[in-house]
Amino acid sequence: MALYALSFTVAMVILQEMGVDMRAILVSAGVLGLAVGFGAQALIKDVIAGFFILLEGLVRVGDVIEVGSHTGTVETVGLRVTTMRVLSGALRVVPNGELTQFANYNRGWARAIVEVGVTYDTDVRRALDTLERVGREWSAETGLALEPPGAQGIIRFGESAVVLRLVAKVAPPARDGAEIELRRRIKEAFDRDGLELAGPHRAIYLKPQAVRT
Amino acid sequence: MALYALSFTVAMVILQEMGVDMRAILVSAGVLGLAVGFGAQALIKDVIAGFFILLEGLVRVGDVIEVGSHTGTVETVGLRVTTMRVLSGALRVVPNGELTQFANYNRGWARAIVEVGVTYDTDVRRALDTLERVGREWSAETGLALEPPGAQGIIRFGESAVVLRLVAKVAPPARDGAEIELRRRIKEAFDRDGLELAGPHRAIYLKPQAVRT
Amino acid sequence: MALYALSFTVAMVILQEMGVDMRAILVSAGVLGLAVGFGAQALIKDVIAGFFILLEGLVRVGDVIEVGSHTGTVETVGLRVTTMRVLSGALRVVPNGELTQFANYNRGWARAIVEVGVTYDTDVRRALDTLERVGREWSAETGLALEPPGAQGIIRFGESAVVLRLVAKVAPPARDGAEIELRRRIKEAFDRDGLELAGPHRAIYLKPQAVRT
Amino acid sequence: MALYALSFTVAMVILQEMGVDMRAILVSAGVLGLAVGFGAQALIKDVIAGFFILLEGLVRVGDVIEVGSHTGTVETVGLRVTTMRVLSGALRVVPNGELTQFANYNRGWARAIVEVGVTYDTDVRRALDTLERVGREWSAETGLALEPPGAQGIIRFGESAVVLRLVAKVAPPARDGAEIELRRRIKEAFDRDGLELAGPHRAIYLKPQAVRT
Amino acid sequence: MALYALSFTVAMVILQEMGVDMRAILVSAGVLGLAVGFGAQALIKDVIAGFFILLEGLVRVGDVIEVGSHTGTVETVGLRVTTMRVLSGALRVVPNGELTQFANYNRGWARAIVEVGVTYDTDVRRALDTLERVGREWSAETGLALEPPGAQGIIRFGESAVVLRLVAKVAPPARDGAEIELRRRIKEAFDRDGLELAGPHRAIYLKPQAVRT
Amino acid sequence: MALYALSFTVAMVILQEMGVDMRAILVSAGVLGLAVGFGAQALIKDVIAGFFILLEGLVRVGDVIEVGSHTGTVETVGLRVTTMRVLSGALRVVPNGELTQFANYNRGWARAIVEVGVTYDTDVRRALDTLERVGREWSAETGLALEPPGAQGIIRFGESAVVLRLVAKVAPPARDGAEIELRRRIKEAFDRDGLELAGPHRAIYLKPQAVRT
Amino acid sequence: MALYALSFTVAMVILQEMGVDMRAILVSAGVLGLAVGFGAQALIKDVIAGFFILLEGLVRVGDVIEVGSHTGTVETVGLRVTTMRVLSGALRVVPNGELTQFANYNRGWARAIVEVGVTYDTDVRRALDTLERVGREWSAETGLALEPPGAQGIIRFGESAVVLRLVAKVAPPARDGAEIELRRRIKEAFDRDGLELAGPHRAIYLKPQAVRT
Repeated sequence: MALYALSFTVAMVILQEMGVDMRAILVSAGVLGLAVGFGAQALIKDVIAGFFILLEGLVRVGDVIEVGSHTGTVETVGLRVTTMRVLSGALRVVPNGELTQFANYNRGWARAIVEVGVTYDTDVRRALDTLERVGREWSAETGLALEPPGAQGIIRFGESAVVLRLVAKVAPPARDGAEIELRRRIKEAFDRDGLELAGPHRAIYLKPQAVRT
Repeated sequence: MALYALSFTVAMVILQEMGVDMRAILVSAGVLGLAVGFGAQALIKDVIAGFFILLEGLVRVGDVIEVGSHTGTVETVGLRVTTMRVLSGALRVVPNGELTQFANYNRGWARAIVEVGVTYDTDVRRALDTLERVGREWSAETGLALEPPGAQGIIRFGESAVVLRLVAKVAPPARDGAEIELRRRIKEAFDRDGLELAGPHRAIYLKPQAVRT
Repeated sequence: MALYALSFTVAMVILQEMGVDMRAILVSAGVLGLAVGFGAQALIKDVIAGFFILLEGLVRVGDVIEVGSHTGTVETVGLRVTTMRVLSGALRVVPNGELTQFANYNRGWARAIVEVGVTYDTDVRRALDTLERVGREWSAETGLALEPPGAQGIIRFGESAVVLRLVAKVAPPARDGAEIELRRRIKEAFDRDGLELAGPHRAIYLKPQAVRT
Repeated sequence: MALYALSFTVAMVILQEMGVDMRAILVSAGVLGLAVGFGAQALIKDVIAGFFILLEGLVRVGDVIEVGSHTGTVETVGLRVTTMRVLSGALRVVPNGELTQFANYNRGWARAIVEVGVTYDTDVRRALDTLERVGREWSAETGLALEPPGAQGIIRFGESAVVLRLVAKVAPPARDGAEIELRRRIKEAFDRDGLELAGPHRAIYLKPQAVRT
Repeated sequence: MALYALSFTVAMVILQEMGVDMRAILVSAGVLGLAVGFGAQALIKDVIAGFFILLEGLVRVGDVIEVGSHTGTVETVGLRVTTMRVLSGALRVVPNGELTQFANYNRGWARAIVEVGVTYDTDVRRALDTLERVGREWSAETGLALEPPGAQGIIRFGESAVVLRLVAKVAPPARDGAEIELRRRIKEAFDRDGLELAGPHRAIYLKPQAVRT
Repeated sequence: MALYALSFTVAMVILQEMGVDMRAILVSAGVLGLAVGFGAQALIKDVIAGFFILLEGLVRVGDVIEVGSHTGTVETVGLRVTTMRVLSGALRVVPNGELTQFANYNRGWARAIVEVGVTYDTDVRRALDTLERVGREWSAETGLALEPPGAQGIIRFGESAVVLRLVAKVAPPARDGAEIELRRRIKEAFDRDGLELAGPHRAIYLKPQAVRT
Repeated sequence: MALYALSFTVAMVILQEMGVDMRAILVSAGVLGLAVGFGAQALIKDVIAGFFILLEGLVRVGDVIEVGSHTGTVETVGLRVTTMRVLSGALRVVPNGELTQFANYNRGWARAIVEVGVTYDTDVRRALDTLERVGREWSAETGLALEPPGAQGIIRFGESAVVLRLVAKVAPPARDGAEIELRRRIKEAFDRDGLELAGPHRAIYLKPQAVRT
């Protein structure tokens, strides 16, 4: 852009020396400039956004960010584009102008969250006790929890399950591992305590009408 | 922007002193300015929106807000972006220009709402009585309700359930806890009173044609 | 905006007194103005829309309105934003420029509508009679109906139900209560008359091929 | 807008009398005007659209129109907005600039359409005869049909039904009632003739492998 | 627009005669013009599109066209809007500027297409033979086919069916009728030949684990 | 557009001869021009895109292209619009400005792809052998394959099937026919070899709890 | 564009020689230029984006990229458009201006990922051991893994399965083959070890109420 402006100015000075009428050229330049101005807005928007992302430090190399439905580890933050590496190893390119709403998983702390469904027949208090105990033991053995983990009560009445939740505050890099570990421990504790995780099930009524006709 | 304007003016004064024709430069500057003007509109829109958000106090640090499908606690409100912490601990960045339609859960009061489905066979009056009683007992024991909680009647005829609702006005920070507590109490009261929460179920007709061919 | 224009004019007068060439400044100001003009359009659009909403009285404080998929009671109508309180108690902020297509539930009258599904085996005339009677009794006992309620016939052949409809004209604030009350009365009347509301059900053919291989 | 232009002109004349340099003010006005021009485009678009809607008579008070997924009876047609009353009694506001693609149900004639699904076992010719007869009787008794109603053949092979269609040309206001009436008559005629409307059903194969392991 | 330009010019001439300074008025007019220019772009886009639609004859009165998800018969083609009558008899208004991607069913010839699903147990060759024969007989009896109809093989392996296809080239107005007629003939031929059209069905394995616990 | 420019210039010359002040007219023309400029942008965008499509030969008459979710054979490529004939025989009109992302099936070679699902009980190696053999025989008999067809392994673990894939490189016009032929051969080979294509099936556990209450 | 500017300038010089007033022509040219400027913005945006794609080397011929929901191998990277060959052999054209967010699978390394579902009854530790062993054997036999493959624990509690994951870092071109090979090995190892991959299954409760009425 700046190059364009410079070379145009030089050309103008030369042409004027040659006595060419400037107005016609100015109008032509205006049309061309208009098209360029419109076409370049995406580029300039990216650069302005990139400037602020760098300035405010909202994204840094190594951060895990979520843009739209894609999550990955930031590899580079440039003036025009940011790149991140997603799980499959693909390098995802995101123009900074589209880094508007996004989430950064590496800011201070993170929460490991495991939701489990139990059947409607289950004694909820017992299930919560088991969850609580799993959290306590995991915290004691690994020392990863920043605060004592807590089993929240009934999060919602689901279609085929009463949904409970175990929550633990951890350092951001430990989140994925903590969730995987907690899920395994919960599965085994539930198996041990004779509690059933709700897979899909369905109650069936054999209607009396069935015999009718 | 303002910087750009200033440095441009200084450059112009110097160039004129050197006897350069101003018109060519002015056109170049116009083209450049057009592109910058277009590209910067997102930025300026964010700042204007941020100015009004701060001025009108629609969002304050610590408020729980919902933007699109994301809910979180506001950590910072800046001129350009607002950040909020979502349940997973991720810090979500929202440019102020996209904080157009949003909901703020911390304004005066909130409503704890629990919807329960009961099977079509259930005596609805009995179920409503149980709901009502759960609400009353919870209110008496915790003192959280700003108004006496009320069991609303049949909210809708669902696919596999008649849906009822218990509603309680509480202070905003108590909402999540109140809903979790009420759900547990309802589950236990229904179990005690022999009322069934509707999980998925399906009536089956064994059709006479089945024997046909 | 107006402030910007004023301060700019004052600055210009001072600069000219100091003998600075105006053209360079004018171009700079143009670029800056362009960016501001673009960026401020959302704001001005909101204010213009707000002016007309206030002028035409399409929305008033206390009205129940539906914007997109959100329904709430209007708390404030400002020049820039309108706020409404939704069921959960959250205060929803809607810029006036996005209050384009919306519905206002508090204009003159409202209709309480209850749709019920009955199984394909049901005698539709009997079900309609029951609906009609429920409507008549409810109207007589509560006096809420502005016109005699009417049971409409088969609204559609649904996947697992023949859908009927009861409709009653009421004053807007009575609508929610009327629907809840009517649903309960219909449920009880159907139970009494031995009519079955259609929950999910499915006919099963045991195919002869099943025994084949 | 016009007001703005007038008051601005007056202010200019006064300021010039006082000897203020006009150029600075003109640029300020230009910036302000740009922002206003951008912000007002939605308004002017609405008014231009409204002018043509009134001129061409595409929508009149009392017409039933469908805009997006909402259908209602037009209550007012203004220069800026059109309002319509939907089934629930809510008054829906639609800016004329968004009344681009829409359907008007009150132009000349309408078609009452009833689609019925019959099971794959059904004798389609018999079902079509019954449909045909229902249409003929309804037409004879009510005199509403503008042309003799016709039973169309197999419209599509559905997932659990062969879909047939009965079509009748009627005056627009009679459409809803005609469809409801026809659905009831078809239901009763099918019951009488021993034809089954297809609710959901499913053939089940008990696989020999089931006994395997 | 043209009117606006004319009346403005006249007003200018008069004002100048009265000695009013033109510059202030010109700026005001510019602002007003900008807003009008922006607001009118939808209108002018419609007219330009309409001009080309008429010029190129892409749509003519009586054509069946599909715009987005709506199909109807064109009633009028104007400079600004095109109207079409859909199946329900509603008159659908489409601004020409939104007639960008659309399909015209009345250009030269059309294809009647019937897709049928047969169960995975079916002998596909036999089913294709039956389809082929139905096509041949229909063509011979009605003389509607422009080319001999053909039964295509397995179009896809569906969830509960192997999908076959019968295709016949016909004149555009005969398409709907041909498809309905072919569907009925196929249904009857399949019934006669003991071939089963695939309704929904599902194989069930009774797992040995079921007896386990 | 060019016409407009010419006739405007002529009118200007005449008016000036008559001594009319040019400035007022110029402003009017500017407003009108602005509106026309905005409104015509879709048209000019189409023409520019069309120019490049013709220049680069990305689309030629007879090519099978896919635009959005529509696939058809190109009938004409014009400066403003491209038309294609879809399967149903409808002529689809696509403005060139919307021919941005599209796929062209007639460039060099194509791949016939058949995905088949087999039940989780199936011996995958045997199924892959059968696929491989079908591909080899088909290639030998028809000579259509540009490279020896290959059976790829397990493409994914589907909900009710292990999905395998047979792939064959063919000339573009042969693709549809090759896929249909391969599907029939695979179906017959699987029937012969006692391999089962996975239709929908479901394992059922009769839970011991079922007997509980 | 540049051509347009040149030819316009030449025409202007000639016309001026002929004594034609320039202002009228300049305005006409401005209107025409405006329309062209607007219409050409997509083109210029494509070219600017293409320039940066080439400059930064984000996409090279032979790379496998994913744009929106389409994945293919890049065949050409031009200034205006990029083309890629998708699985079906179709050549997909993507204007560079729409190559904003995309993923490049050929940058350094890739991850082969296989997710398997096991039933809720399964001993998760045994299943993980088997996964681990499969990964180790595959790595030893093929030497494709850049790092020792690892079996991650419970990734999520799915609707009908506990989901586990095997992950292996490989060179980008080996990814597809590695995943297919790993899936087959896992299937066979699970069969050998008597572990069951979770196809769809459902627990059924025969409710006592069923006998009620």
